[in-house]
Formats: sequence, C-alpha cells, structure tokens
Amino acid sequence: MDGDQVPGHIKSVKRIGISSKWDDNAIELAGEIYRYLCNKGIDVVLEDDIATRIGEKGIRIRRMNVDILICVGGDGTLLRALQKTSSLPEPPAVLGINIGTLGFLTDVPMDRATEVVGGLLKEYEVFERERLSLSIDGYGLPPATNEVVLVTAQPAKMLRYVVYVDGQEMEHLRADGLVIATPTGSTAYSMSAGGPIVDPRVLSMLVVPLAPFKLSARPWVVPMNSKVEVELSVEKEALVVVDGQYTRTLKKGEILSVTRHDKPARFVKVGEVSFYEKVRKELS
Amino acid sequence: MDGDQVPGHIKSVKRIGISSKWDDNAIELAGEIYRYLCNKGIDVVLEDDIATRIGEKGIRIRRMNVDILICVGGDGTLLRALQKTSSLPEPPAVLGINIGTLGFLTDVPMDRATEVVGGLLKEYEVFERERLSLSIDGYGLPPATNEVVLVTAQPAKMLRYVVYVDGQEMEHLRADGLVIATPTGSTAYSMSAGGPIVDPRVLSMLVVPLAPFKLSARPWVVPMNSKVEVELSVEKEALVVVDGQYTRTLKKGEILSVTRHDKPARFVKVGEVSFYEKVRKELS
Amino acid sequence: MDGDQVPGHIKSVKRIGISSKWDDNAIELAGEIYRYLCNKGIDVVLEDDIATRIGEKGIRIRRMNVDILICVGGDGTLLRALQKTSSLPEPPAVLGINIGTLGFLTDVPMDRATEVVGGLLKEYEVFERERLSLSIDGYGLPPATNEVVLVTAQPAKMLRYVVYVDGQEMEHLRADGLVIATPTGSTAYSMSAGGPIVDPRVLSMLVVPLAPFKLSARPWVVPMNSKVEVELSVEKEALVVVDGQYTRTLKKGEILSVTRHDKPARFVKVGEVSFYEKVRKELS
Amino acid sequence: MDGDQVPGHIKSVKRIGISSKWDDNAIELAGEIYRYLCNKGIDVVLEDDIATRIGEKGIRIRRMNVDILICVGGDGTLLRALQKTSSLPEPPAVLGINIGTLGFLTDVPMDRATEVVGGLLKEYEVFERERLSLSIDGYGLPPATNEVVLVTAQPAKMLRYVVYVDGQEMEHLRADGLVIATPTGSTAYSMSAGGPIVDPRVLSMLVVPLAPFKLSARPWVVPMNSKVEVELSVEKEALVVVDGQYTRTLKKGEILSVTRHDKPARFVKVGEVSFYEKVRKELS
Repeated sequence: MDGDQVPGHIKSVKRIGISSKWDDNAIELAGEIYRYLCNKGIDVVLEDDIATRIGEKGIRIRRMNVDILICVGGDGTLLRALQKTSSLPEPPAVLGINIGTLGFLTDVPMDRATEVVGGLLKEYEVFERERLSLSIDGYGLPPATNEVVLVTAQPAKMLRYVVYVDGQEMEHLRADGLVIATPTGSTAYSMSAGGPIVDPRVLSMLVVPLAPFKLSARPWVVPMNSKVEVELSVEKEALVVVDGQYTRTLKKGEILSVTRHDKPARFVKVGEVSFYEKVRKELS
Repeated sequence: MDGDQVPGHIKSVKRIGISSKWDDNAIELAGEIYRYLCNKGIDVVLEDDIATRIGEKGIRIRRMNVDILICVGGDGTLLRALQKTSSLPEPPAVLGINIGTLGFLTDVPMDRATEVVGGLLKEYEVFERERLSLSIDGYGLPPATNEVVLVTAQPAKMLRYVVYVDGQEMEHLRADGLVIATPTGSTAYSMSAGGPIVDPRVLSMLVVPLAPFKLSARPWVVPMNSKVEVELSVEKEALVVVDGQYTRTLKKGEILSVTRHDKPARFVKVGEVSFYEKVRKELS
Repeated sequence: MDGDQVPGHIKSVKRIGISSKWDDNAIELAGEIYRYLCNKGIDVVLEDDIATRIGEKGIRIRRMNVDILICVGGDGTLLRALQKTSSLPEPPAVLGINIGTLGFLTDVPMDRATEVVGGLLKEYEVFERERLSLSIDGYGLPPATNEVVLVTAQPAKMLRYVVYVDGQEMEHLRADGLVIATPTGSTAYSMSAGGPIVDPRVLSMLVVPLAPFKLSARPWVVPMNSKVEVELSVEKEALVVVDGQYTRTLKKGEILSVTRHDKPARFVKVGEVSFYEKVRKELS
Repeated sequence: MDGDQVPGHIKSVKRIGISSKWDDNAIELAGEIYRYLCNKGIDVVLEDDIATRIGEKGIRIRRMNVDILICVGGDGTLLRALQKTSSLPEPPAVLGINIGTLGFLTDVPMDRATEVVGGLLKEYEVFERERLSLSIDGYGLPPATNEVVLVTAQPAKMLRYVVYVDGQEMEHLRADGLVIATPTGSTAYSMSAGGPIVDPRVLSMLVVPLAPFKLSARPWVVPMNSKVEVELSVEKEALVVVDGQYTRTLKKGEILSVTRHDKPARFVKVGEVSFYEKVRKELS
C-alpha cells in the first residue's frame, strides 16, 4: 500500500506540504504525518506556524511549491489552503484529513491518515473542481471553491441588493444576504439557504438568497461562464465572505463581480465514493 | 367623519400620544397630526425628541399615559413603541401611519393620516395580538410582537444550539440562527426563513431555523402556552434581537426562555381588510 | 407485566377488538394476539374477514362495541379503523401493532405485541387527538385523523380551486391539489407537501397546497375552530381522499367543508416517547 | 413591418403551418392567420382537424414539412406540436400565439398575432432549447421540451422508486412522483414541485421529487449529458407523462431512461425580453 515496491512511480510525488488547523489534535497529527514522510525519505515541508509549534522549520502556505498539500483539520482548513495557494503558478492538489465529525471535502478520517498518505507516494490521482473568480470594483479577492456570501454587517438588519446576470437584471431583493456557490458548494452553505444539490459536473453557479423577504424568491442556477454582479441598493454596509475564510466589506456603489475562475481547485482523489453516495451519507 | 357631531363618544379618547421615525417626512407629518389634534381640542402629547425638533414640548414614550399612540413611520416605529410602552400599567393602543412602501402593521397611508385620525375621535375599536415574553437567565427583555431572533454575532459563522419545548429536546442544529415568532410575526422575518403563514387567532409560536445545515430541518409550530428554551452548544457569542429593535448578547451557558406574554399588543382597528386579503396583497 | 396480580384494575378493560391489514403476517399475528387474550380470559372479538381466514367467528369493525381496538398492520390499518368506528356512540381507543418499517401512529413493533397487549389488561391510559369533520354539500364523509387531500382525478393535470376560511377568501390556486391536515397529520402527507411540523397540542388545521403553480404559495396554519371551504374553479373532477382510506369525487359547484370534529380520535398510550423525540427519530 | 420591401429575405420562409387548440377562439384566430397568409401569397397549411372545422383542407401535424409552425392556444398546444413534429427530418421552428392568460412559451398575445406573423415573412430568427430523450425498456417516447413526470396511477397513493445517474444510485424515495425537467421546464411543473429556476443555457436536467415522504429530499441538478434512470420499487403502476401531453404506464421491472435529445426544440424568436425579465413578470 505504501508504494515502496514501485520506485518508478515515487517520482510522481516530488514534494509534499503539510498544513493544519490551529488545534492541538490537528497539530499533533500533522507532526506525525511529517515524521512519517521524513522517514520515507520524502521531501516534505510544514506550514510555518505549525512548524514552530512542534520545533521544526517551516514556510508559509503561500510559498509552498509542492505537488500535494495535506490539510489536517476540517473543510475550513482545506478551503483556507486552497485560497492561500491560489496565486501560485502551479497550485498543489490538496488532501484533507478530517479530525472531527463533519467534512464534505475532507474525506480521510484521522485514524487512516498515514495509511492513505502512504498510498499516495506510489501514484495519486487528481480531480478538479470549478472555482469562482471574485472582484469588487476590479480589486481581486481570493477565488471561491464553495461560495461567496454577501451578508449584512449588522445582524438581523436586512440588505437590499440587485443581482445582474450578463448585464440583465435578475432579481431585486430585501434579504439577509445572498449566496453565490459552485456545484461543489451546493452541499455547503447554499444548501442551508435552500439551494438544490448540483452534480459537480454541471458547469453552473448557484444564486441563492438568504432569508429573502419575498414569498416568490427562489434559488437560481446560471451558467458558470456568466458574469454575475451584485450591488447594494441601500446605504448599508455588507460583508463579502469567501468560503468562510476571507472577509471584505462591500459599500453602496461598489460592485461584486463573480465569474468562472481560470484555475480549478485540485483535489487528491481518495477512494471511490460517488458524489451521490456521499450526499446521501453526509447530509440526510 | 371627524366625529364632532357625536360628542358623547368623544370621551372614549381622552388622550393621544404621537411618536415618529427619525426621518424628515415622518417628523413633519407627526407635527401636522399634532396641530390637527390640538385644533380639535384633544389632549395630545409628542414624543420628546420629535417635540424638540418641531419646537414643542414632549415626553418620553415610556411615560406616555395615553389611550392611543400614533406612530408615524414604518413597522419598526410601531414595534419600538410597543416595546417602550409594554411596562406601563395600561399600555396604549397603537396606530401606525406608513410613510413608505411596506407595512404589514402600519395600515394607514400618509395621505389619509388626518382623515383616519379624525375618524377615531368619535370612537375607535381595538384588537389584540399575542406577544412573547422573553428572558435570559431570568433577566427580562422587552416582549416580542413579531419575533425574537437568535443570530451569530460573527456574520457567516454558524451557531450551534439546542431548542427545548416544555423541557423536551426539540432540535439540535447548526444554523445561522433561529426565529421564534408569534402568528403576527409569521408574515415578517419568520416568513423569510421559510415559516408558514399563521392566522393570528391560532394560539401558537413558530420556531423556524435560519439557514440550518441539515436537510431535514423544518419549521415547527408549538403551543403559545409552552415554554421554549434555547441554549448555545458552542463557545460562540450570539445576538438576541427582539422585533429588530432591541439587541442583547447570549453566551454559552445562558438560556433564552420564551413564553406567552401576559399583556397582548393592542392595535387600533382601521378598515375591514381581512388577514388573508392582506397577505395576498402585501406578500405575493 | 400482564397485570394478573392486580385484578382490581382488570375491570378497566372489559372488551377488546382485533383488526388487521389484509396481509399474511398481519393476520397471523392478529390470530396469535386473539388466542393470547382468549387464554387470559379476556372478552375479545375479531374483525369478520380476519376471523374467517383463521377459522373463527367475527364481527364488522363498525359494530365493535369494545374498549380497545388492536390494529395489526401499519398507519393505514389504524386510520381505517378510526374511520369505521367513528360513528359508534363510544368509539374504542386504538392500538397499532406495526408489522413493517414505518409507522408514526403505530408504535408497537411486532415482536413486542403480546408483551404490550398484556400490559394493558391491568390498566391503560388513553390520549386524544383532534380530528377534522368533513362534508361535501352537506353530505358527511368520515372524519380525518391525519388529513383530507384534494387531488386531480387525472394525474399530471392541474386543478384550480379557491379556499375560504370563515367565509374569507384565502387563496386561489392552480396546483396538483391541496392538503388540509390536523397537527397529527403534520408528520404525514402534509409534511411531504412542505408543511411545518405542528405540536399536537396546537388547536389548528394546516392548509398546504400540493405543487402549486405559483412561486408565492405557502403553507397556512388556521384555527381548528375555523370553517375551511374548498371549491373547484374549473370544470374538472377532483378526488377527495380521507386519510388515504376513503375516496369521493368533488365536482365544480360542490363545496368541500372542513371543521373541527366533535369526537377526537382516541389512542392507547404506549411508552413515554415525546412527540419531538419521535419526529427526530422517524423523519430525519 | 410585413417585409414586402425586402423581397430577398422573403425566401427564408418557404412554408408555414398552422396548428390550434381545440377551442372556438383559437380555431377562429387560426383561420384568420391562415387567410392573412394566403392573401400574402405564402404557402400555408392547416392542421387537418382545424381545417375541417373551417371548411379548408389540411394535413396532419406529423407530416408538416414547414419552416415555421404557428400554434394558436397555450403552452400545451405548443408542446404537443413539438412532440408531433419531433420525428420529422427537419422539424419546424414553432411560434406560440397565446389566447389565454398564461404562457411561458407562447409569447405572442392574440391581438398582436397577425402583426407578429407578418413581421416574420421578411426574416426570422430561431433559438434552440435542449430536450430530453425518453425511453421505457428501449421503447422510445416523444422527447420532452419541459419535463417528464412520473406519477402514481392511483391518486393519493405514494410511489416508491429509485433514481440512478450514470449507473450510480442517487436517491430511493417514497413520494407522489418525480419530475425530470429541462432548464426550459424549470419554470413549469418542476417549479411547482420546488425546483430552482435554471437559465436555459445551463446544460443540465432537474430531478425534483413530488411531495417526497422524507424531510431531507431536495431538488437535484445533473448534467444534461448524464443518463438518468428511474425504476419503481413496489408493485404499483405509475404513469409517465411527457410535457402534459403524452401518457404511458410504467410497471415494476421497467426502466424509464432519460438522456439528452439530439435535436433541440426550435422556437421562433419574438421580441427581446430576457429570460430573467420573463421570470420576474410571469411567475412572481
């Protein structure tokens, strides 16, 4: 399983990075994986903060020029790593090790971590998922793997906004906010807001209002190649949150623009569980 | 229409108060109504802030010992007035004059304000609506006419909470928040969160999760005479917002308790539009 | 457990009836329970069809003048028994023995049948649930314990209908149909149609459209003491189905009238599982 | 407007067919359009039944070898014409004249019929919409422009079925039925069943359960190039209804198979109303 017997394929993994949630169990497991890979003779680097904690040297995620980036924690840890590596010329494929109970993106349970990581040293398969490219008045934000959310900066005070698709007005709403999600994100926040479950192969974005004050508001599915724009229509400040990891404010007059990102997120494939099986197991 | 011909009934309105939204149009209209009533010889008092603005003397809403309190603005103005008068021994009946486009509780449009107010001087009818009594660890909050909302204090970060009904666990959820509404509030925030429309005569509370991360979460309807309790199950701070007007924090370990309030909200009845007709007109 | 030790309480059960689904396993179990009760010296009667099948004498359910009516099968068996005994001067309390996988009303699993039945001979507790009284142009239908459903008689062809509450128009819809449910029925068909879960103590009816062709249609909750009337507004025939057991046609011009039934359904109480616990277990 | 000035473009319409709903107003209007086109010297043919009614000769829709097929009636008339012409080597582009109040596909109101038809004689633009190819155990059904619906043949009795996507089990449900829709159909029956609104440019199918007896059931969006299969899992008969126009039964053991149809539906473009504008106007 650990691939030692097939040295010809070991070349396919040249360098591995390790990132972790800021949590004792996660950091401990990250250290174990680090030592396991060192012992295997793999070129492995640790995220700087984690490295310091366990008495090693590390580098920042943004500089991790690796093939695979192992993320120990939950979906948030993985999404953060995808954001931080997105501007690298060749972003790594990520692998999530799940230390808790929930994880739609982090497939590998704690107790199978070294077994699974060992199995990748021989060869590994990568699958890709579309991301959203985001900007506010031309200023770029990190790409979204799951979703970008517009929410009121004052809890329990509604926003008013207009959504345009390819320049056409789609909807004018009073609502708590708005979720614009990828198919990958259809099983995350978008689902909570009432959106449909979308097969990741459908080239589309989901546009789902959060608690709209309008009986007839519905989730929308628009082409991934469309340009979706959102503008506030009242003098309130809103927050734009990307994958629950990055936050910026949006003011009236500014336009949040959402398009297809040119570099998909890359994931290390583990196991053969289909999308549909996963939804049934995790979300029912 | 203004009732002068039937002096015997004028006695039924002894004193009228006037409150207003902090908005130029609203304050101007409040002044007009004030002068109109003074000219009619009615004993009328203005809310202190508004009075100062228009060069009159006024008193605080909390001290308005009046029969009718006219609220110029929107639903928010009315809800605020209901909160502030709730601890008076005999809270006034409120009448909402709507200066904007939306108003489920504020029936009277600007241009009919003096006509309607004049019509009440002869006699007026009052209808009542159930309210919710709220407390956090025994500390009382103002009663809710529409709803109490629990929301995360950090936008786009989910809460975890448990809801109990009469001591029985009802639901354990990860969600953006929770709405507990009266039937009157079923056409307000609760509706945005996906709750049903409830005839005000049904003695019930609505318990509606906000963007729950669980496919099987549903709105609940529980008896108005039940005790609903909510407790956070993670170390995050939440906000408790009453009718969009009053906010307090809820910490882990504290319990938000919701029961039937002993004094219903009192509204001046204007016109004969049925609840069902209103829902069709305002919300479709 | 079988109560022999406390003869003073045996009097409380004078006579027991047994009904069953038309299914081999159910009939066999009905026979076992019958023999078990005969051996205990209980006065017990079998439903006529079942009796014939197992070589005994029986009587029709409509004539079962018993204290408890044991129904072996699923929720449908129980609902049918409640319908058929509804015109008796003193309808029995029903007890459902569940031979399959689902049963919100039939609490007792097959393998605990005689144990539970034995436990009742000493004493038993009854709880009541509100029912709906139904009529079409004055012609009475059996009362509904869960719901009455209006559906198109031609599959996939929409109906058009108007709903009135206490004479006020509530809604005019094009839809597949309409569910009018009790709180007890809120966990049955009404739930499938998108209705809220209603605590059985809330004196209310649910009015839930089936696949309405209108984005703004919503479930409604109306007072149990209201009169709900439904009328077709096109020349199509619809079916009126009571608890999935009784069907009649409704023509244009006829009015389906729904009010509170004067005799609640009576259930034998088994165990101490709360309503909320049951919903979480059965429906999530 | 009628294009006489630009004779070079008149050639683009060589032949026009006219179909109509079986309704007096529709047939009368069909006759008017027929005579209008005859007077213009256009080669025009009438549907046989309609022709007989107005004393002309006609041919069956299935044989209408025309460029444009004008359909007078509602969406149903148009959908029927699309079905009946689907096996022609070069199916016509359809144009819907709406004689009633609703019509998402039939854009042209009665009173603008000849004006619009006249405008097409010079030149006309066609847009295409994806359709679904349907078969039951290899036996082909007409293609679906809006949706195929699986419903119980016995009203108010639930079905049980399994849905597979590309051979993977997607969902196992008890429900009233299932809608499998195109994006075009997302504003029709699928919407009533709770599905999202899908931009017609998204290459996808919607899979939406009808009144599922499962709190966690959700609408799904799957790739248009996938194969969706549905199989009953109980011994009940179901009906398969294509665009509300064509019905067949489905028995246990048979498989309904849904794939992308190779020939899209072709519509004559009228006006410049965007999809989003139309949804806001027609469905709110």
